Amino acid sequence: MSAASPWSLHPRLAADTSEVGDLPLSRLLLMNDANYPWLLLVPRCVGAEEIVDLDEMQRNRLGDEIALVSGALKSVTAADKLNIAAIGNIVSQLHVHVVARRRSDPAWPRPVWGALPARPYEPQARAQLLAAIRGAVGLA
Amino acid sequence: MSAASPWSLHPRLAADTSEVGDLPLSRLLLMNDANYPWLLLVPRCVGAEEIVDLDEMQRNRLGDEIALVSGALKSVTAADKLNIAAIGNIVSQLHVHVVARRRSDPAWPRPVWGALPARPYEPQARAQLLAAIRGAVGLA
Repeated sequence: MSAASPWSLHPRLAADTSEVGDLPLSRLLLMNDANYPWLLLVPRCVGAEEIVDLDEMQRNRLGDEIALVSGALKSVTAADKLNIAAIGNIVSQLHVHVVARRRSDPAWPRPVWGALPARPYEPQARAQLLAAIRGAVGLA
Repeated sequence: MSAASPWSLHPRLAADTSEVGDLPLSRLLLMNDANYPWLLLVPRCVGAEEIVDLDEMQRNRLGDEIALVSGALKSVTAADKLNIAAIGNIVSQLHVHVVARRRSDPAWPRPVWGALPARPYEPQARAQLLAAIRGAVGLA
Protein backbone atom coordinates (compact mmCIF):
# COMPACT_ATOMS: atom_id res chain seq x y z
CA MET A 1 0.00 0.00 0.00
CA SER A 2 1.77 3.16 -1.17
CA ALA A 3 1.10 6.70 -0.07
CA ALA A 4 0.13 7.47 -3.67
CA SER A 5 -2.71 4.94 -3.75
CA PRO A 6 -4.10 4.07 -0.32
CA TRP A 7 -6.88 1.52 -0.13
CA SER A 8 -10.37 2.95 -0.26
CA LEU A 9 -13.77 1.33 -0.33
CA HIS A 10 -15.45 1.27 -3.75
CA PRO A 11 -18.19 3.94 -3.76
CA ARG A 12 -20.85 1.48 -4.91
CA LEU A 13 -20.09 -0.82 -1.96
CA ALA A 14 -20.12 2.18 0.37
CA ALA A 15 -23.51 3.30 -0.99
CA ASP A 16 -25.13 -0.12 -0.55
CA THR A 17 -23.95 -0.86 2.99
CA SER A 18 -23.58 0.21 6.60
CA GLU A 19 -20.16 -0.14 8.20
CA VAL A 20 -19.77 -2.75 10.93
CA GLY A 21 -16.05 -2.14 11.50
CA ASP A 22 -12.53 -3.21 10.55
CA LEU A 23 -11.22 -6.71 11.15
CA PRO A 24 -7.45 -7.26 10.79
CA LEU A 25 -7.62 -7.80 7.01
CA SER A 26 -11.08 -6.73 5.92
CA ARG A 27 -13.66 -4.03 6.35
CA LEU A 28 -16.91 -5.64 7.47
CA LEU A 29 -20.12 -4.17 6.04
CA LEU A 30 -23.85 -4.87 6.37
CA MET A 31 -25.81 -4.76 3.14
CA ASN A 32 -28.77 -2.37 3.28
CA ASP A 33 -31.21 -5.16 2.51
CA ALA A 34 -33.50 -6.40 5.26
CA ASN A 35 -34.57 -9.43 3.19
CA TYR A 36 -31.64 -11.37 4.68
CA PRO A 37 -28.79 -10.69 7.12
CA TRP A 38 -26.10 -10.07 4.46
CA LEU A 39 -22.52 -9.10 5.27
CA LEU A 40 -19.58 -8.19 3.06
CA LEU A 41 -15.90 -8.69 3.86
CA VAL A 42 -13.72 -6.33 1.82
CA PRO A 43 -9.96 -7.02 2.21
CA ARG A 44 -8.13 -3.70 2.53
CA CYS A 45 -5.64 -4.71 -0.17
CA VAL A 46 -5.02 -2.16 -2.92
CA GLY A 47 -5.97 -3.48 -6.34
CA ALA A 48 -7.20 -6.92 -5.25
CA GLU A 49 -10.00 -8.22 -7.50
CA GLU A 50 -9.69 -11.99 -7.12
CA ILE A 51 -8.97 -14.23 -4.14
CA VAL A 52 -5.81 -15.31 -6.02
CA ASP A 53 -4.62 -11.68 -5.92
CA LEU A 54 -4.05 -12.19 -2.17
CA ASP A 55 -0.84 -13.76 -0.91
CA GLU A 56 -1.07 -16.96 1.14
CA MET A 57 -1.06 -15.17 4.49
CA GLN A 58 -3.81 -12.77 3.37
CA ARG A 59 -5.81 -15.68 1.95
CA ASN A 60 -5.60 -17.62 5.21
CA ARG A 61 -6.55 -14.46 7.10
CA LEU A 62 -9.56 -14.02 4.82
CA GLY A 63 -10.54 -17.63 5.56
CA ASP A 64 -10.28 -16.90 9.29
CA GLU A 65 -12.50 -13.82 8.88
CA ILE A 66 -15.04 -15.74 6.79
CA ALA A 67 -15.20 -18.32 9.60
CA LEU A 68 -15.48 -15.62 12.28
CA VAL A 69 -18.27 -13.80 10.46
CA SER A 70 -20.04 -17.06 9.60
CA GLY A 71 -20.09 -18.07 13.25
CA ALA A 72 -21.31 -14.63 14.24
CA LEU A 73 -24.15 -14.67 11.69
CA LYS A 74 -25.18 -18.16 12.79
CA SER A 75 -25.26 -17.11 16.45
CA VAL A 76 -27.08 -13.84 15.80
CA THR A 77 -29.59 -14.98 13.19
CA ALA A 78 -30.20 -18.73 13.61
CA ALA A 79 -29.67 -19.22 9.88
CA ASP A 80 -30.48 -22.50 8.15
CA LYS A 81 -27.63 -22.09 5.65
CA LEU A 82 -24.80 -19.71 4.90
CA ASN A 83 -24.10 -18.56 1.37
CA ILE A 84 -20.53 -17.36 0.83
CA ALA A 85 -19.33 -15.94 -2.47
CA ALA A 86 -16.78 -13.78 -4.25
CA ILE A 87 -18.42 -12.75 -7.53
CA GLY A 88 -17.49 -9.19 -8.50
CA ASN A 89 -18.90 -9.12 -12.03
CA ILE A 90 -20.23 -5.59 -11.48
CA VAL A 91 -18.00 -4.14 -8.71
CA SER A 92 -14.54 -5.57 -9.31
CA GLN A 93 -13.01 -4.61 -5.92
CA LEU A 94 -12.63 -7.95 -4.11
CA HIS A 95 -15.52 -8.45 -1.71
CA VAL A 96 -16.88 -11.63 -0.14
CA HIS A 97 -20.59 -12.03 0.53
CA VAL A 98 -21.61 -13.90 3.69
CA VAL A 99 -25.38 -14.25 3.69
CA ALA A 100 -27.55 -15.89 6.36
CA ARG A 101 -30.29 -17.81 4.61
CA ARG A 102 -33.48 -19.23 6.07
CA ARG A 103 -35.80 -21.66 4.38
CA SER A 104 -38.52 -19.07 5.01
CA ASP A 105 -36.71 -16.15 3.33
CA PRO A 106 -38.30 -14.69 0.20
CA ALA A 107 -35.64 -15.94 -2.25
CA TRP A 108 -35.05 -19.45 -0.87
CA PRO A 109 -33.66 -21.70 -2.34
CA ARG A 110 -32.37 -19.35 -5.03
CA PRO A 111 -29.17 -17.37 -4.46
CA VAL A 112 -29.78 -13.79 -3.37
CA TRP A 113 -27.95 -11.99 -6.16
CA GLY A 114 -30.48 -10.34 -8.41
CA ALA A 115 -33.35 -12.25 -6.78
CA LEU A 116 -35.26 -9.39 -5.15
CA PRO A 117 -35.11 -5.61 -4.81
CA ALA A 118 -33.34 -4.54 -1.63
CA ARG A 119 -35.73 -3.88 1.26
CA PRO A 120 -34.63 -1.04 3.57
CA TYR A 121 -34.09 -1.73 7.26
CA GLU A 122 -36.05 0.03 9.93
CA PRO A 123 -33.35 2.20 11.54
CA GLN A 124 -33.79 0.62 14.96
CA ALA A 125 -33.67 -2.93 13.56
CA ARG A 126 -30.50 -2.09 11.67
CA ALA A 127 -28.87 -0.55 14.76
CA GLN A 128 -29.74 -3.64 16.81
CA LEU A 129 -28.37 -6.01 14.18
CA LEU A 130 -25.16 -3.96 13.81
CA ALA A 131 -24.67 -4.02 17.58
CA ALA A 132 -25.28 -7.76 17.77
CA ILE A 133 -22.83 -8.47 14.93
CA ARG A 134 -20.17 -6.18 16.42
CA GLY A 135 -20.51 -8.04 19.70
CA ALA A 136 -20.30 -11.45 18.03
CA VAL A 137 -17.14 -10.61 16.02
CA GLY A 138 -15.39 -8.76 18.84
CA LEU A 139 -15.79 -5.22 17.44
CA ALA A 140 -18.14 -3.95 20.15
CA MET B 1 -13.82 -40.51 8.86
CA SER B 2 -15.09 -43.74 10.41
CA ALA B 3 -15.40 -47.10 8.69
CA ALA B 4 -19.14 -46.89 9.34
CA SER B 5 -19.61 -43.69 7.32
CA PRO B 6 -16.90 -43.10 4.74
CA TRP B 7 -17.10 -39.95 2.67
CA SER B 8 -18.97 -40.30 -0.60
CA LEU B 9 -19.91 -37.79 -3.25
CA HIS B 10 -23.55 -36.65 -3.17
CA PRO B 11 -25.37 -38.41 -6.05
CA ARG B 12 -26.72 -35.11 -7.42
CA LEU B 13 -23.19 -33.69 -7.67
CA ALA B 14 -22.02 -36.93 -9.27
CA ALA B 15 -24.84 -36.78 -11.83
CA ASP B 16 -24.13 -33.17 -12.83
CA THR B 17 -20.35 -33.43 -13.26
CA SER B 18 -17.36 -35.20 -14.75
CA GLU B 19 -14.51 -36.12 -12.43
CA VAL B 20 -11.24 -34.25 -12.83
CA GLY B 21 -9.46 -35.98 -9.95
CA ASP B 22 -8.61 -35.81 -6.25
CA LEU B 23 -6.58 -32.97 -4.73
CA PRO B 24 -5.26 -33.46 -1.18
CA LEU B 25 -8.49 -32.23 0.46
CA SER B 26 -11.10 -32.07 -2.26
CA ARG B 27 -12.50 -33.97 -5.19
CA LEU B 28 -12.34 -31.72 -8.26
CA LEU B 29 -15.26 -31.93 -10.69
CA LEU B 30 -16.23 -30.29 -13.97
CA MET B 31 -19.89 -29.27 -14.25
CA ASN B 32 -21.58 -30.71 -17.33
CA ASP B 33 -22.41 -27.24 -18.64
CA ALA B 34 -20.54 -25.92 -21.64
CA ASN B 35 -21.92 -22.40 -21.13
CA TYR B 36 -18.93 -21.66 -18.87
CA PRO B 37 -15.88 -23.55 -17.60
CA TRP B 38 -17.30 -24.42 -14.17
CA LEU B 39 -15.47 -26.48 -11.57
CA LEU B 40 -16.52 -27.77 -8.15
CA LEU B 41 -14.24 -28.48 -5.20
CA VAL B 42 -15.84 -30.97 -2.80
CA PRO B 43 -13.83 -31.45 0.42
CA ARG B 44 -13.78 -35.15 1.28
CA CYS B 45 -14.87 -34.44 4.88
CA VAL B 46 -17.76 -36.53 6.20
CA GLY B 47 -20.75 -34.40 7.14
CA ALA B 48 -19.30 -30.99 6.18
CA GLU B 49 -22.00 -28.59 4.97
CA GLU B 50 -20.48 -25.19 5.75
CA ILE B 51 -16.94 -23.81 5.44
CA VAL B 52 -17.05 -23.36 9.24
CA ASP B 53 -17.52 -27.12 9.59
CA LEU B 54 -13.87 -27.49 8.49
CA ASP B 55 -11.05 -27.14 11.02
CA GLU B 56 -8.46 -24.43 10.47
CA MET B 57 -6.02 -26.71 8.64
CA GLN B 58 -8.73 -27.99 6.32
CA ARG B 59 -9.96 -24.43 5.72
CA ASN B 60 -6.48 -23.25 4.79
CA ARG B 61 -6.08 -26.29 2.54
CA LEU B 62 -9.39 -25.45 0.86
CA GLY B 63 -8.10 -21.91 0.31
CA ASP B 64 -4.96 -23.32 -1.27
CA GLU B 65 -7.04 -25.51 -3.57
CA ILE B 66 -9.33 -22.62 -4.52
CA ALA B 67 -6.20 -20.64 -5.46
CA LEU B 68 -4.72 -23.59 -7.39
CA VAL B 69 -7.92 -24.18 -9.33
CA SER B 70 -8.45 -20.45 -9.91
CA GLY B 71 -4.99 -20.13 -11.43
CA ALA B 72 -5.58 -23.22 -13.56
CA LEU B 73 -8.90 -21.92 -14.88
CA LYS B 74 -7.35 -18.54 -15.67
CA SER B 75 -4.49 -20.14 -17.57
CA VAL B 76 -6.68 -22.62 -19.45
CA THR B 77 -9.65 -20.38 -20.27
CA ALA B 78 -8.46 -16.76 -20.35
CA ALA B 79 -11.37 -15.76 -18.09
CA ASP B 80 -12.26 -12.11 -17.45
CA LYS B 81 -13.46 -12.86 -13.89
CA LEU B 82 -13.67 -15.78 -11.50
CA ASN B 83 -16.82 -16.42 -9.51
CA ILE B 84 -16.24 -18.47 -6.35
CA ALA B 85 -19.05 -19.57 -4.07
CA ALA B 86 -20.23 -22.01 -1.43
CA ILE B 87 -24.04 -21.92 -1.56
CA GLY B 88 -25.53 -25.37 -0.97
CA ASN B 89 -29.19 -24.41 -0.63
CA ILE B 90 -30.23 -27.45 -2.68
CA VAL B 91 -27.35 -29.92 -2.20
CA SER B 92 -26.11 -29.47 1.34
CA GLN B 93 -22.81 -31.42 0.98
CA LEU B 94 -20.13 -28.68 1.10
CA HIS B 95 -19.02 -27.83 -2.43
CA VAL B 96 -17.27 -24.73 -3.74
CA HIS B 97 -18.03 -23.43 -7.21
CA VAL B 98 -15.14 -21.95 -9.19
CA VAL B 99 -16.51 -20.53 -12.43
CA ALA B 100 -14.56 -18.86 -15.23
CA ARG B 101 -16.63 -15.96 -16.52
CA ARG B 102 -16.21 -13.98 -19.71
CA ARG B 103 -17.89 -10.75 -20.56
CA SER B 104 -19.14 -12.52 -23.69
CA ASP B 105 -20.72 -15.47 -21.87
CA PRO B 106 -24.51 -15.84 -22.09
CA ALA B 107 -25.27 -14.97 -18.45
CA TRP B 108 -22.81 -12.08 -17.94
CA PRO B 109 -22.92 -10.10 -15.65
CA ARG B 110 -25.44 -12.20 -13.74
CA PRO B 111 -24.25 -15.07 -11.53
CA VAL B 112 -24.54 -18.47 -13.20
CA TRP B 113 -26.79 -20.19 -10.65
CA GLY B 114 -30.22 -20.62 -12.16
CA ALA B 115 -29.37 -18.31 -15.07
CA LEU B 116 -29.50 -20.74 -17.98
CA PRO B 117 -30.23 -24.41 -18.66
CA ALA B 118 -27.04 -26.48 -18.73
CA ARG B 119 -25.64 -26.93 -22.24
CA PRO B 120 -23.99 -30.34 -22.82
CA TYR B 121 -20.36 -30.50 -23.89
CA GLU B 122 -19.28 -32.09 -27.14
CA PRO B 123 -17.44 -35.20 -25.86
CA GLN B 124 -14.18 -34.18 -27.51
CA ALA B 125 -14.34 -30.63 -26.14
CA ARG B 126 -14.98 -31.98 -22.66
CA ALA B 127 -12.08 -34.44 -22.91
CA GLN B 128 -9.76 -31.65 -24.05
CA LEU B 129 -10.85 -29.34 -21.23
CA LEU B 130 -10.50 -32.10 -18.62
CA ALA B 131 -7.00 -32.87 -19.88
CA ALA B 132 -6.00 -29.20 -19.83
CA ILE B 133 -7.32 -28.73 -16.28
CA ARG B 134 -5.63 -31.90 -15.04
CA GLY B 135 -2.36 -30.64 -16.48
CA ALA B 136 -2.77 -27.20 -14.94
CA VAL B 137 -3.54 -28.50 -11.42
CA GLY B 138 -0.90 -31.26 -11.48
CA LEU B 139 -3.29 -34.22 -11.84
CA ALA B 140 -2.20 -35.25 -15.35
